[in-house]
Parts: sequence; structure tokens; C-alpha cells
Amino acid sequence: MFIQKIKSEGLSHLSYLVGNKGKAFVIDPRRDCEIYMEEAAKAGCRITHVFETHRNEDLISGAPILAKLTGARVLHGPNAMGDVTYADTTRDGDTYEFGNLTLQVLETPGHTDDSLSFAVFDTDHGDGAVGVFTGDALFIGDVGRTDFYPDRAEEVAGLLYDSLQKILALGDQAILYPAHGAGSVCGDNMADREFSSLGYERQYNDRLRIDSRERFIKEKIAEHHYQPPYFRLMEKLNLTGADPAPRVTTPVPLSPNEFHDLPDTTAIIDVRTVSAFLGAHLPGSLAIPAPMIPAFAGWYIEPGQPVVLVAADPGQAREAAQHLIRIGLDNLRGFLTTDMPEWSARGLPFHSLPAMHVDDIRERFRNPPENWQLLDVRSITEYEEEAIDGSVHVYVGELPEQLDRLDGNRHYTVMCASGARATIAASVLERAGFSRVDVFLGSFGAWKSRD
Amino acid sequence: MFIQKIKSEGLSHLSYLVGNKGKAFVIDPRRDCEIYMEEAAKAGCRITHVFETHRNEDLISGAPILAKLTGARVLHGPNAMGDVTYADTTRDGDTYEFGNLTLQVLETPGHTDDSLSFAVFDTDHGDGAVGVFTGDALFIGDVGRTDFYPDRAEEVAGLLYDSLQKILALGDQAILYPAHGAGSVCGDNMADREFSSLGYERQYNDRLRIDSRERFIKEKIAEHHYQPPYFRLMEKLNLTGADPAPRVTTPVPLSPNEFHDLPDTTAIIDVRTVSAFLGAHLPGSLAIPAPMIPAFAGWYIEPGQPVVLVAADPGQAREAAQHLIRIGLDNLRGFLTTDMPEWSARGLPFHSLPAMHVDDIRERFRNPPENWQLLDVRSITEYEEEAIDGSVHVYVGELPEQLDRLDGNRHYTVMCASGARATIAASVLERAGFSRVDVFLGSFGAWKSRD
Amino acid sequence: MFIQKIKSEGLSHLSYLVGNKGKAFVIDPRRDCEIYMEEAAKAGCRITHVFETHRNEDLISGAPILAKLTGARVLHGPNAMGDVTYADTTRDGDTYEFGNLTLQVLETPGHTDDSLSFAVFDTDHGDGAVGVFTGDALFIGDVGRTDFYPDRAEEVAGLLYDSLQKILALGDQAILYPAHGAGSVCGDNMADREFSSLGYERQYNDRLRIDSRERFIKEKIAEHHYQPPYFRLMEKLNLTGADPAPRVTTPVPLSPNEFHDLPDTTAIIDVRTVSAFLGAHLPGSLAIPAPMIPAFAGWYIEPGQPVVLVAADPGQAREAAQHLIRIGLDNLRGFLTTDMPEWSARGLPFHSLPAMHVDDIRERFRNPPENWQLLDVRSITEYEEEAIDGSVHVYVGELPEQLDRLDGNRHYTVMCASGARATIAASVLERAGFSRVDVFLGSFGAWKSRD
Amino acid sequence: MFIQKIKSEGLSHLSYLVGNKGKAFVIDPRRDCEIYMEEAAKAGCRITHVFETHRNEDLISGAPILAKLTGARVLHGPNAMGDVTYADTTRDGDTYEFGNLTLQVLETPGHTDDSLSFAVFDTDHGDGAVGVFTGDALFIGDVGRTDFYPDRAEEVAGLLYDSLQKILALGDQAILYPAHGAGSVCGDNMADREFSSLGYERQYNDRLRIDSRERFIKEKIAEHHYQPPYFRLMEKLNLTGADPAPRVTTPVPLSPNEFHDLPDTTAIIDVRTVSAFLGAHLPGSLAIPAPMIPAFAGWYIEPGQPVVLVAADPGQAREAAQHLIRIGLDNLRGFLTTDMPEWSARGLPFHSLPAMHVDDIRERFRNPPENWQLLDVRSITEYEEEAIDGSVHVYVGELPEQLDRLDGNRHYTVMCASGARATIAASVLERAGFSRVDVFLGSFGAWKSRD
Repeated sequence: MFIQKIKSEGLSHLSYLVGNKGKAFVIDPRRDCEIYMEEAAKAGCRITHVFETHRNEDLISGAPILAKLTGARVLHGPNAMGDVTYADTTRDGDTYEFGNLTLQVLETPGHTDDSLSFAVFDTDHGDGAVGVFTGDALFIGDVGRTDFYPDRAEEVAGLLYDSLQKILALGDQAILYPAHGAGSVCGDNMADREFSSLGYERQYNDRLRIDSRERFIKEKIAEHHYQPPYFRLMEKLNLTGADPAPRVTTPVPLSPNEFHDLPDTTAIIDVRTVSAFLGAHLPGSLAIPAPMIPAFAGWYIEPGQPVVLVAADPGQAREAAQHLIRIGLDNLRGFLTTDMPEWSARGLPFHSLPAMHVDDIRERFRNPPENWQLLDVRSITEYEEEAIDGSVHVYVGELPEQLDRLDGNRHYTVMCASGARATIAASVLERAGFSRVDVFLGSFGAWKSRD
Repeated sequence: MFIQKIKSEGLSHLSYLVGNKGKAFVIDPRRDCEIYMEEAAKAGCRITHVFETHRNEDLISGAPILAKLTGARVLHGPNAMGDVTYADTTRDGDTYEFGNLTLQVLETPGHTDDSLSFAVFDTDHGDGAVGVFTGDALFIGDVGRTDFYPDRAEEVAGLLYDSLQKILALGDQAILYPAHGAGSVCGDNMADREFSSLGYERQYNDRLRIDSRERFIKEKIAEHHYQPPYFRLMEKLNLTGADPAPRVTTPVPLSPNEFHDLPDTTAIIDVRTVSAFLGAHLPGSLAIPAPMIPAFAGWYIEPGQPVVLVAADPGQAREAAQHLIRIGLDNLRGFLTTDMPEWSARGLPFHSLPAMHVDDIRERFRNPPENWQLLDVRSITEYEEEAIDGSVHVYVGELPEQLDRLDGNRHYTVMCASGARATIAASVLERAGFSRVDVFLGSFGAWKSRD
Repeated sequence: MFIQKIKSEGLSHLSYLVGNKGKAFVIDPRRDCEIYMEEAAKAGCRITHVFETHRNEDLISGAPILAKLTGARVLHGPNAMGDVTYADTTRDGDTYEFGNLTLQVLETPGHTDDSLSFAVFDTDHGDGAVGVFTGDALFIGDVGRTDFYPDRAEEVAGLLYDSLQKILALGDQAILYPAHGAGSVCGDNMADREFSSLGYERQYNDRLRIDSRERFIKEKIAEHHYQPPYFRLMEKLNLTGADPAPRVTTPVPLSPNEFHDLPDTTAIIDVRTVSAFLGAHLPGSLAIPAPMIPAFAGWYIEPGQPVVLVAADPGQAREAAQHLIRIGLDNLRGFLTTDMPEWSARGLPFHSLPAMHVDDIRERFRNPPENWQLLDVRSITEYEEEAIDGSVHVYVGELPEQLDRLDGNRHYTVMCASGARATIAASVLERAGFSRVDVFLGSFGAWKSRD
Repeated sequence: MFIQKIKSEGLSHLSYLVGNKGKAFVIDPRRDCEIYMEEAAKAGCRITHVFETHRNEDLISGAPILAKLTGARVLHGPNAMGDVTYADTTRDGDTYEFGNLTLQVLETPGHTDDSLSFAVFDTDHGDGAVGVFTGDALFIGDVGRTDFYPDRAEEVAGLLYDSLQKILALGDQAILYPAHGAGSVCGDNMADREFSSLGYERQYNDRLRIDSRERFIKEKIAEHHYQPPYFRLMEKLNLTGADPAPRVTTPVPLSPNEFHDLPDTTAIIDVRTVSAFLGAHLPGSLAIPAPMIPAFAGWYIEPGQPVVLVAADPGQAREAAQHLIRIGLDNLRGFLTTDMPEWSARGLPFHSLPAMHVDDIRERFRNPPENWQLLDVRSITEYEEEAIDGSVHVYVGELPEQLDRLDGNRHYTVMCASGARATIAASVLERAGFSRVDVFLGSFGAWKSRD
């Protein structure tokens, strides 16, 4: 009896292959799902079931794809806001046996109406749960978001409270297997720790220590979460099932000439590091370093929009493509194989963005340049907690739709917590025609270091 | 400018990825063709063309599949006995440019009517060919088979002679890149050397040293080659294009119970080693050690027939499946995950086959057991060259259709050159109900060692 | 904060890389310890400490080797029956900080006098342990052996009882990380489940549910465990530190001629599957299928003895070599690259061992062959639990030293639970000159299936 | 019979594993030589001999290391300027047999006095060479350098001419296997083609087409080559044998704090891309992008000098470390795991270097900034062929020792062919305290595009 965690970096999405005596099931598979079959075969197990904790809004479900490849049955909870056409509905108390492993379904709504948890039992040893898969209901150090039904905010926060009590009732001994880890857009306060138990969370998870249902609801509805526009695409695709991932992940290499011939609607995403983008980049390209794609690409790329990448090497292009494929932004036309010295040696145009040091910024506050503005693109929660006097705020993800709040003739220095999101934002401004943009590298972290 | 050889073991099929300055083409891709895209991307090259030296009869072409994945154009020779629907026709003298690399087409019929060779030139350096892809016209140490048009035997042997002169005219300096290496069913006398040049072959290839067209024809029509029945499936699939290979190669693990529930038409192929099969195997299973699948599975498995494997581990199951997929016998239902001790510990039935030593066989000739017969299953060419007095001959591949030449009541000791093909043959006899079968391990090799 | 389990198959040895905020430590590293450095580097962590739960008797410690490669400090418990020269002594209550992760030492003697457990805390979240590394004190479903100090049997069983209470006092929420899993020679009753918590074990581990110290002691001293002779080598090497593993694991390929030139003291280990050995093997070779090497090679190979392998392929040779290296039997001279058909085709000698079916054995009991004896080589515990009437018992590992209990002129059929250990034993008998040996394939499992 | 080319990128060093019938030899192994053993084992071959074409001056020989690991014998030519203590001397006409493969030694001095070539024959097929390993005597499209004996310039150029005639006499059919490919510092004019034959080179290699020994000598002595200082270290180490490469290549991750505690003599090498260095880098760090390390690190790092790396990820750190190890600059203390946003968010200092576009440079020529100078750091050969009027020249490698030719108060724009070497040079200047430095990105390539 084994549980193998399959982690999708960036999304911090956790899926699980669980095997016992030649049979296996998968919890929340991702779109590129060959890995579950390969790992199961290595372990001598046949995948017979796929369980979904809920209809994911942040990534494409691999459940229908894996089911087609393996003949496995997909089980999904009720109330999924539409029929999940590829799945059978399973309900509280249903059990599934895999030799001496029994899986039991718990309906745990709140994050979504269709949220399930799955407790696992080793019937050879005892009648208490040895582990529980909690989806987006309970995380390590945090609990699920409850902002998806704005009209029913109090109701769903209360539902989550009740669901958490139901989960905790499984007992302190149960090991916790959530659907996301720290870094996910599905929770801000997850612990940067990859293992926990119900007993540990019951005692030390701040949200679980709230002993009043009312106070829990109050705190939950006071939270602010962002919803990138691609969430709507995910919800739609995960109802009927998306296409399998492409067979080859690394996109096609393109020459500078082929880059010139791209359709006008093509988005150029520069997936290199922040420093590399600052140093030199293609005019009009969007900076989204590869590991940041899951969290940010969905704000800027339309479903179906053609995309090309600027990458440091094929491995980085592949990593970026994998991220894009997992969130369904997979109209990928290729990547530029030419590095910036070679590109520019052909006489082709490039831009740079100045990286400002904290001491430069302090000097600017002492002697402000003409028409200068410090622009903070962190989340509103971060900004409201503490910010630099004189800065204005627009969230990095909402920048494209809020450009009219800014003035193209001003000189903007963009900041965030470290300079990474600021670079994304600066690229958005540059692409929109803002000509005086620079980046506060180190940003709020550096600012605080000077206190 | 690079040439990367992609070798498919077992088939000894050689395909090539050729890249230069961001562009690449592939010669004779195999069915599982993701590898060409991945290697091309690593080298920063986009695959724009696929060239086929001829319509392969021994494996599924990956050309239409790769074309669909990459948008590349497929080029095929004329006279392919039907339209190759996924390809454009190219003809003698056509040239294709990839920067300073030029590929030039030579029509080189003989092995098949549609056979092409492709010379490559480095136009930065000189006007002589630097390499040539010869398909099945010219191998290292041998030349192509000319037995596919029995009615036109002399004609096509003569065509091949002429084609070889055309190839040699490219000059001694050209490096030779054939479509097969030693071990392929496409030639018996290939050198066990993986590199050569036209100059080397011109001087030392026995077939090329025949200075008379007439004598060449005479020798070619005197050859005997076998044509496994699956060749006909390949010819058909390679006209219109086969489906892509499955996304996951390792077949599904099956338990002993699941093995019991297989449809009656299912073939059980035991892909373990010869020794393992002799030691213990499932009754009714066919012995084809994984590396021997490309050469022998096509004699025993019908197109579309369900197949399950007995393998020592998932890696061996994967290797066997890959071989089967490449020759289109891909109705794979899974592999047995249970080894023979575990299988038999459930009380399930197994068989063994006695392995006879050369000294046992010599003793049998001195004191023959009752109703005993030594059965040689080597090729007729090998048998006619030299054989043990008193042995009878049936070719291993033709055994199923020639069972009526044997007597189920006799005691057969099966032999070949070493015991490997003999074990395949013994499994065929056992499956057919022959009850007194053993294997001469060491076979003709051991016999000769006692001279 | 992450815990990465590194499992050594066969030994079922579990070691752990634990990382947090750029620092890492390792628990119980194995000899081939590059993997810890590579995984730590991938995670951006520098290994600064190595902790040993006890002086391992069943494998070579990688602690001194890893310390030398990384500059890390090694910590070991007191009372190690001699100075562990490469380590500093750490004691109950000592703590080590890795950012917000604190490791706390618990002295938990019983299995050995130097046994430690290590509790880990996430000081950002709470003051209860989130996990505990228990070495060979507490396993999933079992507790440690207490047979290493025969003179002090009751005392050390009592010490283990007390240590287990100390561990359980950490709380139900702590996740359990033991040093071995099911299949290890360090415990017979471990659960075939790879995850557990203190809470789960407290409730469902049979040994922990014994509520009386006295009864616990009584049960422990009633257990029977085997101690392979190589344990003594391990204990010695792990005091001063063994040499690093060879840089290349795959042994050197040898031709049949080179096999002939081996020194007489060389052990030939056939690491192929049971079936392959039964089918055909080199005379005088010892059957130890690769995955069984950790449990059985130490019974038959002397420290320093030259060893060659017969393997199905280089991958299997490498797997076997890796096992041998981990237990210090690393005077490896190479592996035979020739398979049995090729070997025998040179006229070289080979043997087979008949595989007997359960129905054959039942028939033999009805009509016993002359001078026939069924020999059961399972553990004495298994044999005493239930055995076939008429069988005699010698433990497979003790066979070489108890050969005088057997009669070389008798006809032995060897059995165990499935036929695997029986094949090892049969090879030992054959090597010792017994000429009438066969193997009951299926063995006690098959026998019971006929009840 | 196979020849497997093992390419060391960056150095463009080519070594070869040659196997036949269970035996193998290696030509010119590199320091990290486990790969030869692993590949040989996969092919079922034992390495029995190592041949060196000459005492390499640009990389550490793996011959003594591989010999120690395998027991193979090392063969080296005479006249190596000192005893090669780990090798036996072999001479013109010596032959070595590996089954039907014969290797024959040719003394081919010129590049060095000890230079050998090795012809290989397939004695089953013919008496002409089928391939030849030419070391640094003959490359694809070029011939070896003859600048290592300045006092004997004419003599050694003449020796090389004679050696080349001896090689060509092997016949047009022989395939060419040189010790370096395009990109190596051992030849400027190699073809960017990875395959050739003696016949092709005889006809199309410009150097081989010179029909007069005198003219050949004249052209050779007119060439200019650079000799990085580390060549002297290589020559010394390759006489007695260097230590094996470290067991783990990826260097240790270091935190920013650990970076602060480095000894003053430590060199910080930033191995990220050119763009990343321009965007933001650690003050005092030297820019050498990972792939450029083999060609340039030897100019700036002293033997034994402590080195730390700034890398984008562990993979890039590993690549850079591998390059450094191969040239013996292996006092590697670790790599910084923190990216520039995170680094600067701690308030730590960073620098940027402005990237100038060709249009900026043209504008500067029209309106020169105060005290401005364009500095060209290409090779003197490139500079003398064509250069921008008004530029001054110092070779990038010689910059540290020629800093006194520059003026720290001037404003330097550094250029090369594309901007890559210019960035290295700019980092050297910045480190030396020059405060007004920028980089002409695109450099001479961009300049010419505006013609």
C-alpha cells in the first residue's frame, strides 16, 4: 500500500497515485497524465479508478483523459454546477475497495459545492483512517478559498466550517494529503511544509483553531482573493473534458525570420529570468519567467490565442510549455532559438529595462525626477498591510484592464515584493506604449532592509 | 550540420535526423516518432521535411505521423504500387536545400520499384557528396533483397545492379547511411560494423565486387529470403498511414485472475529469456524473447489479435511492447505481473521444457530413444549449407502452417544454431499439443564444437 | 520544509533527506550517497548534518562518506559498543536548528544500545512534533528486533518497551518515519503500507497495544530472528567507516574465456530469475535472484571473496552489484555477457534443475521415489507454524554449515513458501555435489491451494 | 564493431569508444570518464586499452583515471616532452587487435611532437583502413595548430605537412574521426559539419589542397593563435595524471550569507546568460556564460583559486562546474541559489551594464559622448580582417594583463562580434574599477547589418 505524490510545480498542484496489491487509483490527475500510468506499471498496478476532489478551476483535469487511456472509472461529487459528463457521481459514505485498502467518500462542500474528501483505511490493521485526501477544503496551514459564490459568501464559508469538522472527526492519526501546497493561487497562508496530519493541523492550523463557526465565517468573508480570467476556461473544459496534452511538450524552434512572420495576434512570452528580461528583450514581449507562468499567464493570454516563447534553452521552453498546457493555453507556435547577442547581431531591435536599486529609489524620493510615480503591483492584501508612502497600487494581474488609471506620459517605477512581479508589470506597460518605465529590483523587501 | 542515427534495436532499423542551421529533415522515421522532435528541438532545429527511401515492408512508417505533428512535408519516390496518400512524389534529380546542405534525390529501384537514395552535399565546401542515404539498396557488407517481385526476379535484380552503379558514382568519399544494420531481416550478410563509406564498400563489399551485371543477377536470384506474413499488413498501412503509437508504451499490469478472463483468441507471448521459458512457463504460451519479437512475432500473431505478455519486469514488458507497436501488432491487453514462483504458489499450472546438452544428443544418436526425431528449424539456407545427419527441417517461422508434416506422437528435439529459435519452435509445438518436446541448447554451435 | 524518502529496494532500507530554507540533513544515509547531494542541490539545500539512528548491522553506513564529500557533521548516539570514529556523540534532549525546523534527539535504546530517535518540529506553527524518525525502534506495524544481546535479552526488550513509550509521548499527530519497510530482515511483521503516524500505530500496531511491560518482554524474547554472518562485517565497518562505493556500479563485462580464468575462490552468483536458473545455469553457480541479494548473499559470500555475476543484461548486473556494494561484498570481478544459448553453443557445460508441480509432489507422496526426501528451507518460525508431514527442515541461510545433516546420496526436493528460496537452496546443494535435487515450484503456497 | 563519439560541448572535444566482440578501447578520454565504462558495459564490452593521440593542452586527460578504474593499458606516442608516467610508449607501425578489428599506429607529429593517428581495419572485409582517428593533426575543414614550438615554427609546420600526407595515404574510403569539432580553441577554420572522410577532406579541405610543402609552411606560420594560461597547467597535469573528477558535479548551494563569508581570493563567476548579467549581477563578479567557460575561464582563473558560481538554476551550475572540472579549475566552493530579485530584496548590492543598440552606437559616432572610446575585444585576426574605424583593440583574454593600456577615467563601450565576449570583457573592466562601461549588443554583426 503506497501513496505517491505527483507535484506540478508552479501550480503547486498535488495529485496522488495510490496503489495496493495490483490495483491503483488516482486522485485529481493533471492533464499530462502519462506519468500515472508509467508509475503504476512500475509498481505492478493497474489504474481502475480516478477520483476528483472537485471541479478544478485552476488547471485542466486529466481525469477524462486518463480514463480513456486506461478504461478507469471517474468518480466526481454531486452539485458540480452542471454535469461532469465524463464522471459518475459519488456521494457521502460511498466506499471503494482495493484489496485491504478501503476508500470512503466524504462530502465536504464549501470551497465548491461539489467538493469531496476521501479517507483511506487499511482494513488489515484497524478501523481508523490512516490518511485523507482533502482537495481544496483543508491545506497544510490553511483552509480553502470560499470566494467562488459571491452571492452565497456566508453560506459557503459556513459549509466549509462544517466540512472541516467532518474531516477532523476522522481522528488525529490520519495523514493529510491536500490538493495544493504553498505557492498555489488557491491559498495565501499555506505552510511551507510538505507533510502534516489531522492531529497536527487540528492543534496548529490557525483557521482550524477558530472555535466559533461565526468567527470563522467572518474571517473567511473578509479575505480577498484574485480570480484570473482563465479560471472560466478551466471550469468549462473540466465539465466536458479537455483534449489530451500534445505528444511532444517542447515547442518547435523558430528562427528570427520565422518570428517575423507571426500573426499579429500572437503573444510573445519571454520566459527567461527577470534579470535576463531587464538586460535585453524583444520589443513588445511579455515577461513571465517560466516558474511564474501558472500564476500569471492566465491574466494576459486569451484562450486560443497564438503564443510564442523566448527562452534561454529548449529545456526552459519545455518547462514553460508544460505550464501553459496544464492551464489550457496551448496554442503554442514555437520558441525563439536565438539568444539576444545573436538576435541583435542581425541588427534586430531589442529593449532593456533599468533595474533600480533601493538606494536609487530613496534618492528619488529625496529628489523626485520629473513626473515620477512609484507603482506597487502587489496584491491588495499585501499593499493594505504595509506600503511605501507615495506609491499607488494596481494589481499586476489587473494591469491590462486598468491601464486607463495610469498616464502614459508619466515616468513609472514599478515595484512589488522583490521585483519579479514588477518586471511582469513593467513589460505590460512597455507593451502598452509607456516609454518611461523602470523596475525597483529588490522592491519592498529591499525597502524594509533599510529601516 | 549533423546526422544523428536513431537505431531501432531488433529490427536493426536505422533512421536519421539531419540538421543544419535551424532546419532539419528525417529519413525513414519509425512509428514512435516523438524522438525526432525532441532531438531536433534540443539541437535548435525545426523538422520541415521527411524523406522515405521506400515503402517499408518490415515496420510501420512514422512519416505520416511525424508530418501531422510537425507540419513537415513527406517526400516519397514514384511507383509505390499504389498512392502513398500522405506524401508528395519526388524524382531523380530533385534537390532540397537546408542552408548550405543540399539533398539530392537518386532513383535507385531494385529492392522495390519506389526505392530512392539521397545524397547530401555541403555547398560551403565542395561539389562532391559527403554522405548518402541508401535505404535498402546498399547496406554495409551487403545489398538489398530483390525477392519482392517474384515474376520479375531477373529484371529487378538488374535494376538493383544499375542503381548500385549510380550510387557508387557519387564517389569514394561519401559516407554510407543505410536503412538497416546487421540483424535485420532485410539482409543476411551485412557486416557487423556500423560505419562505412562508398569507397570502402566499392572495394570490399562482395556484392559490389561482382564485375558482371549478369553474374550479379544470377547470384541475387539464387538467394532465398523469408517473408513473414505481417509484411503484407505493413505494406497496406504504409500506403495510407497507420495510427500513432499509443501514448504510454508499457502495457497494463494484469493479475493472474485477470489473465484467466482473457478472450480465447488472445495470444500469450512469453518475452522472457530462453532459459526462463525452459525453466517454467504458462501452458499454451508462445516463447518469443523480447529482442526476437521484431523478427518472429510477425509469423505467429494475426493483425488485430489480442496479445498479453509474460515478462520478467515492467521494463521488459515495455521493450516487447515497443517492438510489437513498431510492427503494428498493437492490440496489447497487458502483461502478467506475477513471476513463476508466485504464479505456481497459487496452485496454477506451469510447464517446463528440458534443455538437452550436446553430449545428451550425441548419446541419443548412439542409443536413440523410442520414436525420436531431431528437428532443425534454421533457415533453409543455413540447413542446406550444413546440417546434422538424421535431422529433418522445418523453418521456425513456417512451423504453424507445416505442422502436418510432423507427427504429434513422436518425440522431437528441436534445434537451431544456438537454441533460441529452437525454443520458439518448441513452444509452437507444445501449444499445438505435442507432448514430447525438448530443446537442444547449444544446437548446431555446440555440435560443431565437438568436431 | 520537505522530507524526501530514499528507499533502497531489497534491503527495504529507508533513509531521508530533510531540507528547509537552504539547509538539509540526512538520516541514515546508505553507502552510495551521491543521491543525497544531488537531490539536495536540486532543492537548493546544503547538507550540513548527518544523523544516524543507530549503528546499522545490515548495511554499510554512508555517513562518513557523505560527511567527507560535503563537510557535514555526523551525529551518533552513545553506547555504540566502541567509538564511531567518524561521528560526534549526541544525547537525549540535544536540539539542532535548521531555520524554523528543530530536530530533537531522543535516546531510544532496545534494538541496540546506541539507538536514537529524532523528532522534528516546525517552530513557525506549533510546539508538537510533526514527525519522528524512529530508526529500528518502531516500524509500521512492528517494533525492532531485540536479539542482538543474547545475554541481556530481557533487559533490552524492556529498554525497547520504555523507548516506545517515550516515542509515543510525542503525540498522535507525529508522522512516522522508520528506517525499514516491509521486506527487511529487521522485522518480520511490518505492514505492507508505506505511511503511518504515531496515532495510527498507537491504536493499531499489535506490539504497541500490549499494555504490560512484562508481556511485551515475554513476547519479544520468544521471537526467533536470523543473523546472517555479514552482519559482523557491517558492525566493524560502521565503526570506522567503509570506503566509498565504486564510481561505476555496473560491473565489467566478461567473456566465457575470461570466466574460465577466474581464481578458484571466486563465487559465481546467478542473479537471473528463478525460472531462468531452473532452465539452464552454469555448473557450480549459486542462484540468488537480484532482488534477493540483500537478504541472502550475506549467508554465502565471505568478506573480500571475489564474485562474478551471471545476469540477463547489464541492467540486472548493475542492480545486483548495487545490492552487493551496499552490504560490503564488493570484490566484484565482472559479469558474464553471454546468455545460455550462446554459452552452450560454444559447447560449454550447463545444468538444469527440474521444477516440480504440486501435483507431482502429491503423487510422490503416494508413490515415493527411491530414497526421496522433501526438504523445507523456510525460517524455523514459518516451519513450526505449519509444515508438510514428512518434510525435514534446514534454514536456507544455514544450509552451507548444516550440510552434514543431509545425505548426498538421497534425492531431495527442496521447498519453501513459493520456490524462490528453494531454488537458492537447491543451488547450494548442487554446488556441494548433491546430484539428485529438484525444486518444488509453488511450494507451500501451492500445497495449501490443494487443501 | 561500433564507434561511439563522446562529445564534450564547449571544448568541442571529441573522444571515442570503439568496441568489437566484447572488447573496447577509448581514444582520448576526458577527465569525467565514467561514461566510457557505462557505455561499454551497455554494449557488453570490456575496456582494455586507452590510446592518446597526443598530450592534450586544452583539457585534463582521463587516460590515467580510466586506466585505474578498468585496468586498461594506456598507450601514448614518443617525444611527449617528458615521461607520460601513466602510459606505455607506442610507435609507428605498432598494431593492436580486438577480434577482427586491428588498430595501427601512425606517428603524425607537427601539432605536437608526440602526435599519433590511429587507423582502424576490419580484417574480415578488406585491407584498407575503414576509419582513422587523427587527433589534432587533421580536422574537418582544417588542420592542427603548429604554434606550440615558437623556436621551431617552420620545422613543425613541415612535420605536420608530412604527417598529413601519411594520413591521406590511407585512402579516400577512410572515415575521419578528429579530436575536435567546430568551436574548439584548437582550430579557427573547422567546418561546422560533424562528419567527413579522408576522400572528402583531400578534395575540399583548403589546407590539404595546398600542393606545395613550402606554401603550407608559409601559411601555417602566418597564423595567429592564442594560448590561455591554463594550457600550462594541463600540460603539467597530463604528464603525471590529474585526480579523478569529483563524485558529484553539481556544486554545493550557498546562501547569500555564505557568499559573504568567502575568502577574498575567491573568484565569483556569473555563468548565466549575457542578458541576465547585463540586467543585474553581483558587483565584482566575472561574466562567463556557462557554454563559454571552456574557452575563456582559463584566461581569468588561477590554478587552485577558489571559485563560486552565480547560476540561474542547479542545472546551469552543474554544466558550468563540469566545464571547469574538465580544465582543472575545480576548487569549486558552491553556487549562489538566490536569484537577483531575492538577492536584492535583502538589500544587497547589484550592478547592471547598459546594452547599447547599433543605432545608439552610430549616434555616438555622430555626437561622441565625452571621453568615449569603442573597445574591440575580438581576436587580433578578426580585428585585422575588418574593424570599425575609431575602435581600439585588446583581446578579451589578454585584458587583465593589458589593463594599463586603458584609462580608468574613460567611457568604454565594449564590442566583439555579437556582444558575448564584450560582456565578459566589460565584467573584467567593471571588476577592475572602471566605472563607465557599457556593451554594444549585436556588435560587429549589427554594425555590418547597417551597411
